[in-house]
Amino acid sequence: MDLVLDGRGRLYVQLARALKQAILSGRIRHGTRIPPTRDMVAMTGLSRTTVVAAYEHLQAEGYLEAKVGSGSYVTAPNLSKSSATALSHRVAAQSAFSERARGICSLGAIPGIRDPSVRYAFQYSMPQLSSTISTEWARVVARVAPYVKPNYPAIQGLPELRAAIHDHIRTNRGIECDPDDILIVNGTQQAVMVTARVLINSNDPVAIEEPQYFGTRQILQLEGADVFGIPVDEHGMRVAELSSRYTKLVCVTPSHQFPTGAVLSKARREALLEYAHGNHSWIIEDDYDGDFRHDEMPIESLHSMDPHGRVIYIGSFSKTLFPAVRLGFVVMPRGLRGDFLSAKWACDFALPALEQVAMTEMINSGTYTKHLRKSASLLAGRRRAMRQAFQRPPFEDVRLTGANAGMHLMAWLPELEHQDLRQLLALAKEKGVGLYSAEPFFMDQAKVPSLMMGFSAIHANEIPIAVGLLGECLHACRAGAKAPRPKLTIV
Amino acid sequence: MDLVLDGRGRLYVQLARALKQAILSGRIRHGTRIPPTRDMVAMTGLSRTTVVAAYEHLQAEGYLEAKVGSGSYVTAPNLSKSSATALSHRVAAQSAFSERARGICSLGAIPGIRDPSVRYAFQYSMPQLSSTISTEWARVVARVAPYVKPNYPAIQGLPELRAAIHDHIRTNRGIECDPDDILIVNGTQQAVMVTARVLINSNDPVAIEEPQYFGTRQILQLEGADVFGIPVDEHGMRVAELSSRYTKLVCVTPSHQFPTGAVLSKARREALLEYAHGNHSWIIEDDYDGDFRHDEMPIESLHSMDPHGRVIYIGSFSKTLFPAVRLGFVVMPRGLRGDFLSAKWACDFALPALEQVAMTEMINSGTYTKHLRKSASLLAGRRRAMRQAFQRPPFEDVRLTGANAGMHLMAWLPELEHQDLRQLLALAKEKGVGLYSAEPFFMDQAKVPSLMMGFSAIHANEIPIAVGLLGECLHACRAGAKAPRPKLTIV
Repeated sequence: MDLVLDGRGRLYVQLARALKQAILSGRIRHGTRIPPTRDMVAMTGLSRTTVVAAYEHLQAEGYLEAKVGSGSYVTAPNLSKSSATALSHRVAAQSAFSERARGICSLGAIPGIRDPSVRYAFQYSMPQLSSTISTEWARVVARVAPYVKPNYPAIQGLPELRAAIHDHIRTNRGIECDPDDILIVNGTQQAVMVTARVLINSNDPVAIEEPQYFGTRQILQLEGADVFGIPVDEHGMRVAELSSRYTKLVCVTPSHQFPTGAVLSKARREALLEYAHGNHSWIIEDDYDGDFRHDEMPIESLHSMDPHGRVIYIGSFSKTLFPAVRLGFVVMPRGLRGDFLSAKWACDFALPALEQVAMTEMINSGTYTKHLRKSASLLAGRRRAMRQAFQRPPFEDVRLTGANAGMHLMAWLPELEHQDLRQLLALAKEKGVGLYSAEPFFMDQAKVPSLMMGFSAIHANEIPIAVGLLGECLHACRAGAKAPRPKLTIV
Repeated sequence: MDLVLDGRGRLYVQLARALKQAILSGRIRHGTRIPPTRDMVAMTGLSRTTVVAAYEHLQAEGYLEAKVGSGSYVTAPNLSKSSATALSHRVAAQSAFSERARGICSLGAIPGIRDPSVRYAFQYSMPQLSSTISTEWARVVARVAPYVKPNYPAIQGLPELRAAIHDHIRTNRGIECDPDDILIVNGTQQAVMVTARVLINSNDPVAIEEPQYFGTRQILQLEGADVFGIPVDEHGMRVAELSSRYTKLVCVTPSHQFPTGAVLSKARREALLEYAHGNHSWIIEDDYDGDFRHDEMPIESLHSMDPHGRVIYIGSFSKTLFPAVRLGFVVMPRGLRGDFLSAKWACDFALPALEQVAMTEMINSGTYTKHLRKSASLLAGRRRAMRQAFQRPPFEDVRLTGANAGMHLMAWLPELEHQDLRQLLALAKEKGVGLYSAEPFFMDQAKVPSLMMGFSAIHANEIPIAVGLLGECLHACRAGAKAPRPKLTIV
């Protein structure tokens, strides 16, 4: 195996990149067992630490899979064909729920997941996968496993985890509640589903931001809600457009609107709370990446401004740690706690205790906060690199939004038509750049085509290169000319 | 601390019993740190192995809780007061679902869970808690944790776990299906819920065995089903009583009817499949403890007899391992796989990967099968002891059902009235015996009062004593006299 390091960045990053390239080019096949670290040290002359770090990095990115007791293997792409075939519908829908599901859900592909054939992936559905934190998590899990009670875990979630979350969100998000107001759930998805069951009857009107996270919209539609969009501008949801309509529920992402990144202005927050109070509407505050603002001035949560108890606050650890950790929580309105518990109970009786104990340990030991701080500073560096890279030509007409927080920004391309965008994506792919349209997040087609530019899977020093390649493609698209064949330089 | 061993059974059992007694009598308070094993060895002169086994036993039974890095503590009873207060309803129900939930669910207490103040608990909601298997589970978890992929786990469940289950149920339950027909779920509860969402519209008629597992009934009612009971006799559900009615779904526990323990006869199985085929009804086959027949002649599963694909087979690992392991599975009808996946996705997107990897390892390594075999033989011994104990006076008129399999039997007390039963329970509690009425499992009051006699938490050599005490109480009840004050002999 010939591996050439390109001299950019730290040694382990170079080694990981060289291996990744060998995998993507097919020089190392899927399923191949890669040399044990010891042999790799002998072959390359690199230190063991470097080799281990490179392997862990590739594992976190999904290129390598370590098998118990037998080494590390190059993995095939994650989307199993079997899942797709499982989606056959050979019998008529048996319930109204299934009828709706057939119209709404397309579980075959989750948008925004890395295509393993690209070198630079602006994927956005995945948090920053850090091998440090997944290794630490594995360590904590191993340590607490013998101490986990074997009995039925509490329906509401382990009291010690609820207490830890209570302290965490009071400090970080200004949320004053009782640990008994907190319901532990499997993630944002379950949080929205449980909330919808508690609140929504068929045809109840529900307002959602346009654009929005499609998963939230789909869950609400599955429950029979009549979901309509309220446009978002640079100050978040245009709350004034609600005033003339009755809604049972309003879904917002106030700290960092998904996907535009807008922050809901203070005036609109007040107006929204006022609206909810006056109309007996409920509000879901989905604070999906609120924790990533940890090192900055925390933005007040909507929940902390709400004197009337209409806000249902949702948080998740899948975005801040990694998605395989299925844990999130809901701060329930006090008068509906019993209903939330019933809906949660119906959903799955209780969550496994092991992850709850491990998460408690992560929070109480300070490891979680340390990880947040580290991630936040890493992401801040990447955000800077993104902003800088887009300041150069040919991006004069490209508008960036959401570049102040989070793990992605949106790039709006007013010069392009929607069909041009598809051409742009194809060109970029040829150049080894994974681009993702923001289209799945719009209920109605947006006037201006836009890209989701996630930077959780791309290093700061790769950003100028990748954005440079994007520039070339954009240029080619504008010219209406066919882009030149890609010149992928490996070294 | 004075501990007197009573000389009955193995040394670790004696030590565990003595400690338990000290805890129950209040001599050792809740929250107390018990001496480290080292000190206990010095104090008692017992071997370290004995002390560790006793501690693990008490931990498995919920009397001790080991805290990471700081020793073992005596635990308070498991029912937190906070969960109960969380059930307040101070706002009107907001949805039809919540309206139904308020009428149906009572999450405050799970029937059949051990009351920690009793010495002999005939609890039945808990599987046999074995410290061996929970220790082994912790070991496997620790070993696989570093190898678990951090990304979003597959919605349908990890392919390797589906493959392992596929092989397991083909061998043990004669189920011929494709791994793609298998959906991994969090447990029976979620299996029923997902199935109900796929199949049931409001007011759809659903038949269930009477008596039945109340959780299944409640989930179906929450989904709006019109649930009615079909009586059970010694050959299981009286299928003939279905024939005149249309049902969308029939729920059965054919291998070991819950709670009566009856086995659905072959003729009735055939009639049920015929009925479902003719009426386009679906069947849920809840095989909740099918795995415990592992050492016996396996009873054919309904699924394996079904030529028309109407049976939805549900299995669970919470009953065979322990409840904190939240894993079960559904064998989906092929034509509805897409709908099942949508319903599962809505429920929680995906289950955590860690437990799925660990379970795969447990099955593939043979540890799970070994555990089943061991549990089955242990339970068989207890069943024998139960049958023998009930053969003596004053149980001449007591009818036992379900004494051939599983972890509990039912004792029918035709001489008593329902109010006598309550007196019997109270008397037994005074004598340190935890008895549980089978009442929660009946939709309509049964003609004859009955007891659930679980033996997952009681050792074979304690069974004659405990049943003997029950006999005294029964005698006292019959005489209508007040029972004598309990004489609890500790040594």
